[in-house]
Parts: sequence; structure tokens; C-alpha cells
Amino acid sequence: MGVDVGSTVCKVTIYDIAGHVFSIASKEYQGLLVSPRKNWYEFDPEVLWRTVADCIRKSIAARKLDPKDIIALSVSVSGESVIPMGKNGKAVYNGIYWTDKRGRSYMSEREILNKKIGSLKIYQITGYPLNYIPSSVKILWLKGKMPEVYNKVWKFMLWEDFINWKLTGEDFISYSTASSSQLFDIRAKKWSSEILEALDIDADILPECLPSGKIIGEVCPEASRITRLSRKTVVVTGGWDQACCALGAGVVKEGDACDVAGTVECITPAVKKPLLNERALSIGLYCSTHVIENLYLYFAFFPTSGAVLKWFKDTLAEKEVEVANKLGRDVYEILVERAAKAELGASGLFVLPFFGGSGTGQRPAFNPNARGAFIGFTLSHRKNDIVRAILEGIAFQTRLIIEEIENLGVNIRELRAVGGGAKSRFWMQIKADVTRKKIVLPDVTEAGTLGAAILAGVGSQVYPNLKKAVGNMCKVKDILHPRNNIATIYNRYYEIYKELYPSLMPIFNKMAEKLTSQ
Amino acid sequence: MGVDVGSTVCKVTIYDIAGHVFSIASKEYQGLLVSPRKNWYEFDPEVLWRTVADCIRKSIAARKLDPKDIIALSVSVSGESVIPMGKNGKAVYNGIYWTDKRGRSYMSEREILNKKIGSLKIYQITGYPLNYIPSSVKILWLKGKMPEVYNKVWKFMLWEDFINWKLTGEDFISYSTASSSQLFDIRAKKWSSEILEALDIDADILPECLPSGKIIGEVCPEASRITRLSRKTVVVTGGWDQACCALGAGVVKEGDACDVAGTVECITPAVKKPLLNERALSIGLYCSTHVIENLYLYFAFFPTSGAVLKWFKDTLAEKEVEVANKLGRDVYEILVERAAKAELGASGLFVLPFFGGSGTGQRPAFNPNARGAFIGFTLSHRKNDIVRAILEGIAFQTRLIIEEIENLGVNIRELRAVGGGAKSRFWMQIKADVTRKKIVLPDVTEAGTLGAAILAGVGSQVYPNLKKAVGNMCKVKDILHPRNNIATIYNRYYEIYKELYPSLMPIFNKMAEKLTSQ
Repeated sequence: MGVDVGSTVCKVTIYDIAGHVFSIASKEYQGLLVSPRKNWYEFDPEVLWRTVADCIRKSIAARKLDPKDIIALSVSVSGESVIPMGKNGKAVYNGIYWTDKRGRSYMSEREILNKKIGSLKIYQITGYPLNYIPSSVKILWLKGKMPEVYNKVWKFMLWEDFINWKLTGEDFISYSTASSSQLFDIRAKKWSSEILEALDIDADILPECLPSGKIIGEVCPEASRITRLSRKTVVVTGGWDQACCALGAGVVKEGDACDVAGTVECITPAVKKPLLNERALSIGLYCSTHVIENLYLYFAFFPTSGAVLKWFKDTLAEKEVEVANKLGRDVYEILVERAAKAELGASGLFVLPFFGGSGTGQRPAFNPNARGAFIGFTLSHRKNDIVRAILEGIAFQTRLIIEEIENLGVNIRELRAVGGGAKSRFWMQIKADVTRKKIVLPDVTEAGTLGAAILAGVGSQVYPNLKKAVGNMCKVKDILHPRNNIATIYNRYYEIYKELYPSLMPIFNKMAEKLTSQ
Repeated sequence: MGVDVGSTVCKVTIYDIAGHVFSIASKEYQGLLVSPRKNWYEFDPEVLWRTVADCIRKSIAARKLDPKDIIALSVSVSGESVIPMGKNGKAVYNGIYWTDKRGRSYMSEREILNKKIGSLKIYQITGYPLNYIPSSVKILWLKGKMPEVYNKVWKFMLWEDFINWKLTGEDFISYSTASSSQLFDIRAKKWSSEILEALDIDADILPECLPSGKIIGEVCPEASRITRLSRKTVVVTGGWDQACCALGAGVVKEGDACDVAGTVECITPAVKKPLLNERALSIGLYCSTHVIENLYLYFAFFPTSGAVLKWFKDTLAEKEVEVANKLGRDVYEILVERAAKAELGASGLFVLPFFGGSGTGQRPAFNPNARGAFIGFTLSHRKNDIVRAILEGIAFQTRLIIEEIENLGVNIRELRAVGGGAKSRFWMQIKADVTRKKIVLPDVTEAGTLGAAILAGVGSQVYPNLKKAVGNMCKVKDILHPRNNIATIYNRYYEIYKELYPSLMPIFNKMAEKLTSQ
């Protein structure tokens, strides 16, 4: 069983030993988040747990499975969020959700860390750039602003160890998920004493760390009662969701990279020895341990990828939505068909897909001032061109990120594409042509739960080793090769695409400066 | 009677003495243009004449008018096009249409003129920048490439004198229309001997020049037969269409400017002494004599104004078109209603309306490499914002042009707006707020024919002078004043708008350079 505790939805999938989906259940969190102040996002950990337990129960009930047949489970989670857990097993304050922005104005963390350790060093230890997102900032905020809460905390739990603890009564986290805290030394594979000392945080207040795929224990009576899991089912350490997803997609050696073509585009190449230098930091490249021993994952992403296509669908494709509804078809399929009718290069129309700020890549990386743009219109451009320009713009940005990573000396041999975008063969062929990378399409519906299930299978020794597990459970649906003649033409377009962000940056900054006071 | 011989449509309007429309007829040219080679555009002058004659006849027949009641007529024309007329009254070669691009590769004109006179001097004499459009280039091309045709030419006629000649048998052109030839000295008000000598062109080959509003003669028997005009109707010199339009809109003194908010945006301020210096040339500002004595008109324009809104309607507003058809409403009205629902500034979305290249304004002016752009998208932008951004982008560009002209020391006091865009009070209010200029909306359907009719009325002494004529015939429907508080906010947006073209120019140039070979 793979349990994927995502940002907004929990998904549980039970796989057979050959990797076939046996049962699926999923549920969106209801009433998880509260926002007591602007930009504060908190959550009730019990709602999270109940949703996870519900999903597990539903996945078992759906196929009238004997719970004893579930050999093991692992949990894949959204990172960074923290739960201040009291000694009595009740949270002493709401959990702080990963998108919470209170740390943005609370600069102490940056001040302390910058002064005592330096931002590059922190990045080199943790793989996590200084910003307001990681668990460390959330913990520090509570320490500084709510000492009465902080002093009552027994453990600051992240989502993985919280669910593991609920399931087994033991508080263990994987190295992978621990990497999202900015307190974990990804090379030494333990909490960083240097950082904890600098911040005056006691290591006791954090969970125990284990590699992914290690047995934590069996399901405890309380959890068994709520989830209907057998007490014999083994709980195994899982990982951070992008890492589990990469494993589920078959990213198991250096040179492989997962490309999650979802709302957000996330590119995660596996590397043996990550280079974490000034340049890697400046392009906004994250790094964590992979869920596979002796491998690391770079995390590169930009916040609005499929989100731009969805925006177009919601904003300017009423007609296509109408047709899709009438014919019972997928509207994205219809849009991609339109794109296919346009010429390569969308007759010189370019899209900068930064509708929610920039991400990894050109500097400044993760610039919240960055915005989306369509550039190059003539009166001859039609809707087909606009859709194609969106698909191509996302492919160009993917290439740009890959190039930036390869400039660090990392070789990316192939992209294993999952997520909504991977459903479109046409789009993925554009990506192959633009990036000049082979694109492998794994035969998988939920790479995250598959990755977790593989870890469960390895940890519980269903498989003798990871290689066997992956060989059994990961299948390939299709492989797309870059076409050389097309790639050569796309090169010319890419050279122009690369100029867009640097050219528009001064304008984006001016917009942020001059228009926000309105 | 005002006859407007436009680029694609001929319109004839008969006005009564108070300026009320009495009868209207219009007709699109059928089969006027032929394109014997790529980028060559030629026309059959007889088709042009027959269409004009048809329209005149229809306008008379429509109201069962006694032709004798038509006191006078004048002709407003599209400029630059030339007709190589033979001695026998038959063209010795097709007319060369104004958009014809054969002169673009034929550089002799620029070479000769540049070498012998210099581009600034030519501009100072003629008000016309060096490019491939004016009549001079078309004449020179025939002289250089088809000497056998050139040698048979009796007169090179522009559209105004061609129609005047067909109507009266006399070949007279107004100073105004002669300004479109780049052979006319707009200050000395005669063909420029300096330029004619440099090009080795005999002045005899060109029509006689007269001020606008001067009697040429009466309708000749042949024309009377075809048009049904009375032989007693007086034909009076008219003018270049933008100038006639400005007169019809009431632009009669320095400080007035006509703003034709049509497919193309054309802003024509009247000045007493035009400054024609290096700076005016570099911003792409044209100048001609006005159709009023002792006044000149600057011509500033950008090629795609309303054209962008039409593009949006055709490309992305299928739903609005459907609704408009169902309700029998104007789709543009529906689109403007959407814009009115968006916030001022379209929530930070900007449109650069150069879908057909840039025009007058920031340098380089009239850059064919320039293209349209939408900049500043977030996922929150909706269709309403996009429409509003188009309306605002056009208003920003109008302000930019006005500022560039005012930087030359010309004061523009008010804009008299005509054309399709002027139908929208909402849009014109945006323009008033953005430009901080009073916008006068004349009560006129066809400013071009009204301007021509005013000239006919003055020339034939229906009115004792121009002032009386304009007082009788030009009426005002509405006046929109800039709102100070709104104007202040728009200022901030305008400051950003101004940066768009300079920032994107290197990209546009690279696109032209790298993508055209495809």
C-alpha cells in the first residue's frame, strides 16, 4: 500500500506484487486549513489524520480485501508543514501549513542563520535555500513569537512522521522528508548540529531519522481500529512526495530525471554527489536525499505549468469547454488538437509561463514579481497558435532548467514524465524535440503512491532489493525520441525564449514597485 | 457632395447646408487590385473611376434628387497611389497602389535622394520621411525599371486629380494630396524643383497644384453622363483623406487634433509652423499642408488600433459573437461592457498594440519587426481584464504619441475623436483620463465626406468663408473631460507602458532576424 498525503488530497493505492493497481481511494481534505490572519495558513492535524485513515479504510473496503493481505505500507508526503505535538499526543497549537507566509516578515531566522553560518553554508548542509517555506522557519517563529507554545512541544512532527506515529506509535521520519525542514544535514544524514546549535533548538524535539524503506513497526491497535489495517501490516519509512514520485516513475540512477508535468512543473534529476555551490543556489535549485540510498535528488520547478493551460481553458476556451461537455470529451485533448493544427513555433508567438512568479532557472530565481506574458502577436495569430505557444513555452522553460542543471556538471540522460501533461503524446513530443532528451512515459497512474508502495515492498522484503522491486513494479508505456530536424528548428526559437525573462524583469520589478500600492 | 475615395471603399455623402446628411452611398471596390508578383499591388484606374461614378449615381438616385440641386463637390482621397496616364487619356500601365512594396528593394530613390539632398532635407521640404510608400518611389521605379512605360506617360496622377480630371477634364490636385507624393514642397506650396531636378523628373509630368477648396471647373459631358451629375455642379479641390477627416471633425486651428480611432489610429494635430527636425523625423511624424490655408497637419499613427480589438473579437470572443448575434447587439458593445467590469489598469495587465509593427512614437518608429504583446498575466486575470488592457494599451500609445509631438513644442489642446472607437463613450473616457486631454465627440457619421463637402461649400461660395462653413456644418455630440483622480492613477501605469517597447525591441529584432528564414 502506498499512501500519498498530498497538499490538498490524500490518495491511497494498493498494488499487487507485479505493480498492478488493485484498489484506489482518494479524498480531498475538508476543512483542513484555517487562516487566522492574512497569509497565515494553519491546519488541524486530526483532520489530516482522519482523512488519511478514511482513505486507507476506503481502499480496503472497495475491493473487499482481507487486510492481512496488505503486507506493508509507506507514506509519501507534502513537505515542510510542521505540527507542534505535546507530550500527551495532542498538538499544543495548530499545525503550520507549508504555504504559510508568516516567516516572510519574520527575519530572525535569516538573520541568525546568515550571521552564524551563512546562506551558502546552510544550503550546502541542507540543500534548502533560505526562504520562508521550510519547517525551520515555522519552528523558529513559534519559538520567538509564542514561547509558551514552544515550551510545551514534545516533538515537531512533519507530515510523514506524524502519520507514521499515528499508525505505529513510533515517531520516525525518512531522510528524504527530513530534507524539507532545512535542519537536516543531507550528506551526514542526521539533524545538523551546527544549525540546531545556531538556532538553539534541541535535537530531542525532532523525530528520529531513518533511510527510506526501513521498517518502523507494525500497526498499533488504535490505528488498526480506525483504518481497518491488520496489526500485522508493516509500516515502512516513505519519503517526500517528489522523491516518491521520482521513484515511482523509475528514477533510480544518476542521469534519470523525473518531470512532473502537473499544475506545477517539477524536474527532479537523480545525482550521486550533488554540487551545492553559489551558482546552484542562485538558480534556485533544491536538493534532498533521494528515497534510494546513496542518491540525491535535485528539485527544480516553476510554479505555473499546467496551471497556465488550465487558466487558458477557464478564461478563453468557453467554446472548447462547451464542445467537450457536449461530446463527453476531455477539453485538454481538444485544446491540444488545436495546438497540433498550428505551425511549429506558433508563427513566432512566445509565452513566458510565469503566471505565478518565476521558479528555478534564470536569475533571480523564484522571483514573485515575475508574471506571465504573450509576446510576438500579429493579426494572423489564431487560437491554435496561442495554445501551441503555451505548450511550447512550458517546454522551453523545461529545457532552460535542464540546461542550468547540466551547467553544474550533471548529465541528464532522460526525462521520465508523469502528471497531467504526460497524458498528451503530442505535448511530450514537443518537449522531447525542444529539450533534445529522450522522454520515457511510465505506465503509471499515481507515481507517488507507487513509489511509496515500492519502498513498502523493499522494506518488508517482498523484494530482495530495490532493483527487483522497480523491475517488477515500474513499467514503460512509451518512449519518445527527439527528432533532430525539428530540434534544430526549435533551437532558434529557444534562443529567443531565453531572452524573454531577462528582458522583462525590469518591467516586472517596476510593476511590483509602482502598482502594488494601488 | 463629399466624395471619399478610400483605400478599399468609396463613400459619397450629400449634405444640406446645415450639415445634415441628405443621402449616402458607398461601395467596396470589386477587383480593383491585382498582384502580378509578391508584394506588388497594382490597380485598374477605370475600376476605381467606375466605382466612384456608381456611388455618385447611387447617392443621387437614393433620394430622387434633382442633380441641379447639388451645388458643388469635392473629393477626399487615399494618398500616394499613382496612375501613369497616357496622352490619349488611357493609363499606359496599371496604377501602383499605395501599399505596393516593390520600392522596398529598389533603393535607387533613397540612394539618389540621400546622396544629392539628404534624408532630413527631403523631410523638411516635403514633410514625408524616406520610405517605400510615397508616389515618388513608385514613379522612380517605373522610370528606372520600365523606361518604355515611363516615356509614354503624359501625367502621373494621384487619386484626387485622377477623379477631378475624370469629372472635369482638368488635371488639378490639392496641396494636401500632393503632400503624399514626397515631391511637393509643403512650405513653398509647389512641386519641389530641388527634388525633381535631383531625380530628373520633369514638373510637366505632374498635375497642377491648387489650395483645397478652389474651383476646378464644371462637370464635363462624359462625366455627367456616367455619374448623372448636372453639368452645372462645380468641382472643387478636396484633399488627402486624413486632412478632410480632420476638417470634418472640426480641426480648424492650432491646438486642435483629430484622433481617428479606427482600424488604424491616426492622430492629426493642426499647426501653424511645423517643426521638421531630426527629432520629428526620428519619431516618424509625417506632415502635410492642411486643407485650410496657413495650417499644416502632423500625421501620427500606429497601424493596429481597433484592429487589435477586432483581432480579439475574431480570435478569442466566439462566445460574445454568439451572444451578440442572438440578441442582435453590437459585439464591440458587449466587449466594452466586459472591460468596464474589470478594474482600472486591468490588474496590471498591459498590451503593446503593435500587431502590425510600430508606428509614430518611440524610436525606431515604424518598425516592421515590432509585434503585439500581453504582459503581466497572473492566474487571476479574466477575459474582462484582457479586453480592458487592449482599450488601455491603445490609450497609452495615444498618450505616448501626443507627448512625443508636444515635446516638439506643439501644444495639443483637445482631441476630436472619430472612427469606430469613438462610438464607445467608455473607451473615450479612458482615453481622456490617460491622455489628460479633453475629448470632443463630433456629431458626424463620415468625417471624411463632411470635410470634402465643407471644401465644396466654401469653394462654391455657399458659405462666405471656412469659419461659417464649419460653424454651420460641424456639430458636437459630447465632450469628455479627464478626471484628475483617475488620471493620477493611470500615470503610474503609463510609466510602465512606456518601457514595454524599448524593453521588447531587441527581442522583436531577434525574432525578425532568426525566425524569418523558416
